[in-house]
Amino acid sequence: MEDSSDDASCLSLQNLGSSSPGRKQNKENTITVNCVTFPHPDTMPEQQLLKPTEWSYCDYFWADKKDPQGNGNVAGFELLLQKQLKGKQMQKEMSEFIRERIKIEEEYAKNLAKLSQNSLAAQEEGSLGEAWAQVKKSLADEAEVHLKFSAKLHSEVEKPLMNFRENFKKDMKKCDHHIADLRKQLASRYAAVEKARKALTERQRDLEMKTQQLEIKLSNKTEEDIKKARRKSTQAGDDLMRCVDLYNQAQSKWFEEMVTTTLELERLEVERVEMIRQHLCQYTQLRHETDMFNQSSSLWTSCFEKWTQPKTGSCGSESTRRATSALWTWRSRRAHAAPGVLPRRGAGGAMERRWWVPLPSGAALSPTLLPTEEREG
Amino acid sequence: MEDSSDDASCLSLQNLGSSSPGRKQNKENTITVNCVTFPHPDTMPEQQLLKPTEWSYCDYFWADKKDPQGNGNVAGFELLLQKQLKGKQMQKEMSEFIRERIKIEEEYAKNLAKLSQNSLAAQEEGSLGEAWAQVKKSLADEAEVHLKFSAKLHSEVEKPLMNFRENFKKDMKKCDHHIADLRKQLASRYAAVEKARKALTERQRDLEMKTQQLEIKLSNKTEEDIKKARRKSTQAGDDLMRCVDLYNQAQSKWFEEMVTTTLELERLEVERVEMIRQHLCQYTQLRHETDMFNQSSSLWTSCFEKWTQPKTGSCGSESTRRATSALWTWRSRRAHAAPGVLPRRGAGGAMERRWWVPLPSGAALSPTLLPTEEREG
Repeated sequence: MEDSSDDASCLSLQNLGSSSPGRKQNKENTITVNCVTFPHPDTMPEQQLLKPTEWSYCDYFWADKKDPQGNGNVAGFELLLQKQLKGKQMQKEMSEFIRERIKIEEEYAKNLAKLSQNSLAAQEEGSLGEAWAQVKKSLADEAEVHLKFSAKLHSEVEKPLMNFRENFKKDMKKCDHHIADLRKQLASRYAAVEKARKALTERQRDLEMKTQQLEIKLSNKTEEDIKKARRKSTQAGDDLMRCVDLYNQAQSKWFEEMVTTTLELERLEVERVEMIRQHLCQYTQLRHETDMFNQSSSLWTSCFEKWTQPKTGSCGSESTRRATSALWTWRSRRAHAAPGVLPRRGAGGAMERRWWVPLPSGAALSPTLLPTEEREG
Repeated sequence: MEDSSDDASCLSLQNLGSSSPGRKQNKENTITVNCVTFPHPDTMPEQQLLKPTEWSYCDYFWADKKDPQGNGNVAGFELLLQKQLKGKQMQKEMSEFIRERIKIEEEYAKNLAKLSQNSLAAQEEGSLGEAWAQVKKSLADEAEVHLKFSAKLHSEVEKPLMNFRENFKKDMKKCDHHIADLRKQLASRYAAVEKARKALTERQRDLEMKTQQLEIKLSNKTEEDIKKARRKSTQAGDDLMRCVDLYNQAQSKWFEEMVTTTLELERLEVERVEMIRQHLCQYTQLRHETDMFNQSSSLWTSCFEKWTQPKTGSCGSESTRRATSALWTWRSRRAHAAPGVLPRRGAGGAMERRWWVPLPSGAALSPTLLPTEEREG
């Protein structure tokens, strides 16, 4: 927008027409900035806001802001548009941030899953071996949880944030141009008013001069001139009136557009913030569920069960129970084999199965002593 | 151990001395395997276990196991030692597994902390900006939690598992050699018994022959021979008796050592499994606490608070509250500046602060219309 609020343009209307009390009043109670006429702050009671109960865009951003860089001015409406576009950018950056989080979760899950496949201590035996397998499995469970988390983050947070308002920038440009055009029209019509006002003043001065001449000496010619001058003055008055009407129409149009558009922009901002709010809550919710799931994850419960079940105090107790059943299967397989001496040894037979084996029914053969020889006397 | 249970060495004692009923009995109720004499399984009632109520190392591993590769035998005791060393190895591998988990946690924490420093969407404003900052901060909190987790895993699980029983292998070798020596002694003394038995048998045969000669024709020389032969037979009998005593001493010593050492090995295994059990529970406990902490972690609560506090329905409502206070500070700073027209414009002044600014007291100047000129008639 090319408007500028340099002092030159900050004309009051004091030069307008003759100085009748009515005009004086008029002069004091309005002030024009950038071709927009405001009621004068000093002489008027403070004006009611359009939305007195809340802060609303439509009650501000009427005036322009001097550019910090000093060159030219920025229209208040332009600032609102910039805010909107910045909001769109923020929303995209949040989406990118979530994508980074997703990558981290995927990497974490990948490493946990890989480790759960690791063969370290896989040869541990008995119930301890089972518990160890549980510990490994639990890593796969954790990996699963974090993978689900990252997938939901993608579909329920990252994507919605990224795809919200695809053509927003284009839409903003549209209403930007719309308001800008109205401001241009306002400027040109203000110029027309100024021009017509000058013309009228000249005509009035001419009419007055001719009237004075008439008082000195009467002549038909002068009579004619006065008639002509009065017609021209009337003409100029009509012109100014038409210009002022056109200007006022433009200003009302701009005013209505400003109110409508700023309210729309406010609605859009409310919508954006609400959308982001919902998705950040969704994020925290997913994060929360992840922890909850990890906790109830099969491992911990089943692992604690195993360890809290009564132990006989011997590490063997559990693994032996396994060994026993192992032994029975072994013995049933051997059932028809000739019961030689060594096979009937628990140790001998059992060792075919595993490191630890009981005898069938406690018939362990512990060493005995040789009898001393009796000598024949 | 070089013992071998080939059938040759499985001699019963049937050749021992003369065939009196006592010796016959003796022949049937013992059997010798690898120089160890057991009561014969067929003729004896099943023997009581040393620990009938539980599975215990000391009731098994008396016999030897044929090597799967077929070459030679492995003593039952050797199998126990192998199991012990394998247990030590398993414990070390579990520690290495935990170290891998620690690395994963450290990597995860590093990435979360890095992301929490990321500047994406840092320019978001108002209470939404605050909430977003909270989301970022929460990543630093999570990183902290996982870093603490990995540190505790290191000090409370990985290290104890790694450092448990530093010189275990050396200790095992010691008792390995000790038992092996006893087995060697047993073998040599068994051989000595066999030798003495043969000698005695010869002497007895010689004595019988000379006695028969005496019956045919009497001569002093023969009388002398018989005395001499009887003396030698008595000598051989004494030798065998001494050898049998030595053998029996060796076997008792080996028997006691086997019982004592296997019970000690069992105690060590119980200790190892209990140690590992405790540290795996510690691992699950730490894992559990991590989730708990994440949940109670400041972010979620405070973030939910913020979002559940009543909203006025306008996104402006909160950010504007901030804007207002911002405005006041701005105005107090400007207090002594000459109140020109533009500074008193909310928009004008406020824009120096932020995109959104209310007027001091609702004195917005919305446009007014120019009056139509009155013409002088």
